[in-house]
Amino acid sequence: MSKSNLAQAETPVTMNGVSVTGIFDTIAAVKKQPDLAEFRFRATNRWISGGHNRSSIQGFYGCGMEDTSREKPFFFDASEPPVLLANNEGANPVEFILHALAGCLTTTMVYHAAARGIAIEGVESSLEGDLDLRGFLGISEEVRKGYREIRVNMRVKSKGSPAVLRSLAQFSPVFDVVSRALPVIVTVETH
Amino acid sequence: MSKSNLAQAETPVTMNGVSVTGIFDTIAAVKKQPDLAEFRFRATNRWISGGHNRSSIQGFYGCGMEDTSREKPFFFDASEPPVLLANNEGANPVEFILHALAGCLTTTMVYHAAARGIAIEGVESSLEGDLDLRGFLGISEEVRKGYREIRVNMRVKSKGSPAVLRSLAQFSPVFDVVSRALPVIVTVETH
Repeated sequence: MSKSNLAQAETPVTMNGVSVTGIFDTIAAVKKQPDLAEFRFRATNRWISGGHNRSSIQGFYGCGMEDTSREKPFFFDASEPPVLLANNEGANPVEFILHALAGCLTTTMVYHAAARGIAIEGVESSLEGDLDLRGFLGISEEVRKGYREIRVNMRVKSKGSPAVLRSLAQFSPVFDVVSRALPVIVTVETH
Repeated sequence: MSKSNLAQAETPVTMNGVSVTGIFDTIAAVKKQPDLAEFRFRATNRWISGGHNRSSIQGFYGCGMEDTSREKPFFFDASEPPVLLANNEGANPVEFILHALAGCLTTTMVYHAAARGIAIEGVESSLEGDLDLRGFLGISEEVRKGYREIRVNMRVKSKGSPAVLRSLAQFSPVFDVVSRALPVIVTVETH
């Protein structure tokens, strides 16, 4: 699907369930005014007890304004299973990383494929991450605290080539966050 | 709280809502048999349409066995707001990264403080991450696709020192995942 096709369309063109017109409109707007591309996402979190806490996610800044599309916040509980000393009040934080990665690789593949006219009929993925608890426990400084490796297998119903689809998925922001070092600045205040 | 106190206790000692006995039992078990520290977490994800997909998280391997503590899976929807071409069917993947990070820093601080006898009465945190959409859109190769920086502010009700609490929080596995590069192996199959 070329841009000229899109320009001719009177109604929005949708592919893979996403507005292709919307994708090209966004690209055009950002090329014209790069500061529209600046996003700031946010979350707040409150500890409940032990390994259980809850995040709230609602507003963000993007496209030059504060977003108001969400009438209510999303709430997510994080907890741990009994073997990690809590009671499964939610998935645990490292499992949420796998969800974030799966969701982002999938959406990214679907959007970029739509922009290129590649039809996708289905995507299923399986993820696993290996973690040695000795890092978290402070038993060994040589063991990293987080995952040492994550593997993602994506099964896609599409006539697109696996190599192309993989390269499109890897435009994923969460793939970038997890696979590359990122400054994370933590400040702690007590009262 | 010293280990000798713990050894004398007949009932589990709890601090900050977490079993201190459980923490030291875990450390002792893993020191004796390091392969008990090996965990493998998992998620599966299925695309629904456009920017909307859903993850399922239930079992994992850890402490030398397959965990069976969860009778049902956790389900999480990922989506995008209208400005990113979906309809808020869930938080978006980069927002889930902030939730994972908040939850993990909090739990890690709480557990490590408990092991050191530092009482915590409350934790609230605020997170924000800056992302330039030009990376995702493929407009500029110089702009990274994910966050370029994440800031976390933690407000802790505790007599512990902010510097110590911060160093304890940074044992967090998700802090490690986000702040350091990690191999992420993506395979794509089509059918």
